[in-house]
Amino acid sequence: MPLRFTLMPPTQPPSPARRRSTTQGRQTRQAILKTAVNVASVEGLEGLSIGRLASELGMSKSGLFAHFGSKEELQLAAIATAQAIFINEVIRPTRKALPGMTRLYALMEAWLAYGERKVFAGGCFFAAAAMEFDSRPGVVRDRLADITNQWLQRLEKWIGEAKERGEIRADVDAAQLAFELHTLMWGANTMLQLYDNAQVKNQMKTAIAHRLQSIVN
Amino acid sequence: MPLRFTLMPPTQPPSPARRRSTTQGRQTRQAILKTAVNVASVEGLEGLSIGRLASELGMSKSGLFAHFGSKEELQLAAIATAQAIFINEVIRPTRKALPGMTRLYALMEAWLAYGERKVFAGGCFFAAAAMEFDSRPGVVRDRLADITNQWLQRLEKWIGEAKERGEIRADVDAAQLAFELHTLMWGANTMLQLYDNAQVKNQMKTAIAHRLQSIVN
Repeated sequence: MPLRFTLMPPTQPPSPARRRSTTQGRQTRQAILKTAVNVASVEGLEGLSIGRLASELGMSKSGLFAHFGSKEELQLAAIATAQAIFINEVIRPTRKALPGMTRLYALMEAWLAYGERKVFAGGCFFAAAAMEFDSRPGVVRDRLADITNQWLQRLEKWIGEAKERGEIRADVDAAQLAFELHTLMWGANTMLQLYDNAQVKNQMKTAIAHRLQSIVN
Repeated sequence: MPLRFTLMPPTQPPSPARRRSTTQGRQTRQAILKTAVNVASVEGLEGLSIGRLASELGMSKSGLFAHFGSKEELQLAAIATAQAIFINEVIRPTRKALPGMTRLYALMEAWLAYGERKVFAGGCFFAAAAMEFDSRPGVVRDRLADITNQWLQRLEKWIGEAKERGEIRADVDAAQLAFELHTLMWGANTMLQLYDNAQVKNQMKTAIAHRLQSIVN
């Protein structure tokens, strides 16, 4: 009988000891990623060297390498963690809102609140990461471009719903308005980080309100 | 007679040899800064280590240190160089335009053209630098905040002139409109770097046109 090869090793139920170590491993990984996301939001994703993070966490470099084989793997894992946090902080609060303008306003409110609460130490994680990697081709930039695209599509879809409900003018181009709200938010995020004063906060809110008021029916 | 101290050393006409070496020194400094600005626009101002730049220019680290005593000094000099380039590329083309909306449109056109021509390898130098340093207190961030403020004041002044000329609605808040145009430009700059396609270019232009059309008389 010929030998059979499979790409995956045969699965076996893990022993209690292995199960415990996997849980511990997952918790350590989560703790590393929480720190990684905050370091990256202030110092950039390029600041996420294994050495920099090891000294921040008081871990050995080899200990960190056991969790993330490379800087790029660590950067991608930090992006996934930041995305989960963003969904929880900005998207989740809008779930109960009615579709259309109500939900769109709820999203803008949630995003402004996420900025004000400083969920990430250095402001919006994605605004900072996209700006940092926008000129560096590779998997990190591609991942950030995909996430930004998902966000734009969500905005466009919700604007489309408001249009279908007759809440905004029929001649509004949903993709264009999504672009305008989004670029405003990214630019305002940097302004808030740079000056951190009440004037910028008010200007941000007024800018979003202006844009939405100009298209309501 | 008491000794007199002055803060400045007494000026003496330089000898021909000294004049030559000063000119050479200035040319080398300019060449270094040109490279520094392009490296920074792609890799960030933090990427401007003396070592990184020395290897890019094929110079020794000590040779670079003779021109810039520290990384911070190099970063500030790169910012000053980028500012001179920006003034030449974006402000100068508007000098002959009439005050008011004509000059404001000319400024937006010049800024869009500066982005399209990729004057800096990594897109708008100031958008990238401000985003990179917005969470890092210090002289570099302060300088970037000052330059951003000068830009906002210029926009506000020119919007004010358009208002005085009765070209835009009297209820337009010039500072708020300056903030809205500026944040849109910063956000759009990242979008253009991230996707670099015709759609984003059109959306940028349409967004600026929308904002200006909404306030004209």
